[in-house]
Amino acid sequence: MSVLVVGSVAFDTLKTPHGDVDNILGGAATHFALAASFFTDTKVVAVVGEDFTEEQRKVFEGRRIDLSGLEVSKGKTFRWGAEYGQNPNDRTTLFTELNVFENFRPQIPESYRDCEYLFLANIHPELQLEVMEQVTKPRMVAADTMNYWIERTPEALARMLKQIDVLVINDEEARQLSGEQNLVVAAEKVRAMGPETLVIKRGEQGVLLFSKDDRFAAPGYPLEKVIDPTGAGDSFGGGFAGYLASCRSLSDATLRQAIVIGSVMGSLCVEDFGTRRLEALSRDKVIERYREFKRLTQFEDL
Amino acid sequence: MSVLVVGSVAFDTLKTPHGDVDNILGGAATHFALAASFFTDTKVVAVVGEDFTEEQRKVFEGRRIDLSGLEVSKGKTFRWGAEYGQNPNDRTTLFTELNVFENFRPQIPESYRDCEYLFLANIHPELQLEVMEQVTKPRMVAADTMNYWIERTPEALARMLKQIDVLVINDEEARQLSGEQNLVVAAEKVRAMGPETLVIKRGEQGVLLFSKDDRFAAPGYPLEKVIDPTGAGDSFGGGFAGYLASCRSLSDATLRQAIVIGSVMGSLCVEDFGTRRLEALSRDKVIERYREFKRLTQFEDL
Repeated sequence: MSVLVVGSVAFDTLKTPHGDVDNILGGAATHFALAASFFTDTKVVAVVGEDFTEEQRKVFEGRRIDLSGLEVSKGKTFRWGAEYGQNPNDRTTLFTELNVFENFRPQIPESYRDCEYLFLANIHPELQLEVMEQVTKPRMVAADTMNYWIERTPEALARMLKQIDVLVINDEEARQLSGEQNLVVAAEKVRAMGPETLVIKRGEQGVLLFSKDDRFAAPGYPLEKVIDPTGAGDSFGGGFAGYLASCRSLSDATLRQAIVIGSVMGSLCVEDFGTRRLEALSRDKVIERYREFKRLTQFEDL
Repeated sequence: MSVLVVGSVAFDTLKTPHGDVDNILGGAATHFALAASFFTDTKVVAVVGEDFTEEQRKVFEGRRIDLSGLEVSKGKTFRWGAEYGQNPNDRTTLFTELNVFENFRPQIPESYRDCEYLFLANIHPELQLEVMEQVTKPRMVAADTMNYWIERTPEALARMLKQIDVLVINDEEARQLSGEQNLVVAAEKVRAMGPETLVIKRGEQGVLLFSKDDRFAAPGYPLEKVIDPTGAGDSFGGGFAGYLASCRSLSDATLRQAIVIGSVMGSLCVEDFGTRRLEALSRDKVIERYREFKRLTQFEDL
């Protein structure tokens, strides 16, 4: 099965303790697609400006990525700048230029509409709802969101949550959305809003999965160097949803594997700036890190 | 094999969002001993004042705990007061009255000196060194410490670290001790200071183990309610060291199990104020939570 992602493609300007880069390819849909393409055919719906050239398009080529849903609009591509501190969680946004992304109205190409696995990256919940209307009968709809929409469009967000199967957010978003400090209580409150399955991303602290009958906890993969944290969450989403689509299963056992695959992709993504690590990555390296994850977490019965 | 713990016995006054208690039994050696006694004979070296009554002594009785190293001094028992916020990590110390603990010079009873497993809870590193001189030939010495000693007695701390096998500290202490923000780099720097094995406690974020040839990560056990976080780290230490002593093994596989046992005891401890949960606990419940930990963390190969 293929997976369809709707989200941003951007040019990122990033400064971390390990260096800086100007206007490199980024955006949620970009990281998602690169990560997911290791496991399944990935269809992208996003918008870029006239400054999106062959150079950027090449990053997606030769992979299991279909760009026929990538709209090129008059104007410039979404640009975003951020600086990270020694602690990768300390991030300051330096600028946000929405450009063509400001008026993005996702159009799902005819050829994408029967896609069974759908991932709605972090965009306005009204747009997430519009996308769902255009996809015929998805087996699984997963979505991301952020504090901005939790604060400013709670009503649209509530409608969106009612229609999805899996919500993938971070711990602060789960707390904010539920109004609960305790993550277990927060998770059950969020699940009661709609999504049967909730995935809580906690960066270097790992990931928690709350589904109907299961709870799973994956630790963060211990890394000696985090070169650039940008895209870790979206690479997680791509690995997670791409793997699920490839398995055609949503069993608890498969969800657990998908969480680890997502964690693997996120942990690899941050080892270089932007998409560099995912671009250079082999499938063998992905499998090797999955095995390392397993070695890292297993223990014997008493 | 038995385990010997040297540390504080205290009266705690605690306020959490779930209630408050005055002058209940606490202290590192108390939580440690109660947790360790589920697995092995536990010998306590600590000091209390004349206000330590039969009521408190009874908490230790009927368990595998030997109090012949508990010194009763003229004066009052160590008292400590703290208040926690909605987030259990937000702790404000309200008062610290060292009382008889101020002049504590641990004397190891003759009958304790051949103890093979030694846990030096958080006390002055000079005192930790003095204890090591009194114990004949331990198989394993583990120690805890805190920011106070890292800042004020770095030289004594450095000598202590050279002589121990296992250091059990939290993530902020590991960062402060090493001067490194990244925990993996921090861990290797701390290991280079002496302890072959480093255990980093991260509260609800779980535990990391760094040993000579192994790395292990255990997530925090997801709890719906943290009634009182006091003693979680010391209960971890008791479960960890008590289990190791009971196994007479320091293999990587046993260390991993000990980390999970420690996590189990810590997660149980916080379910009620002070020592109440550990007092009411059955061995079956400990084993049940160990199994839940396993269910929480396991996943299949690809």
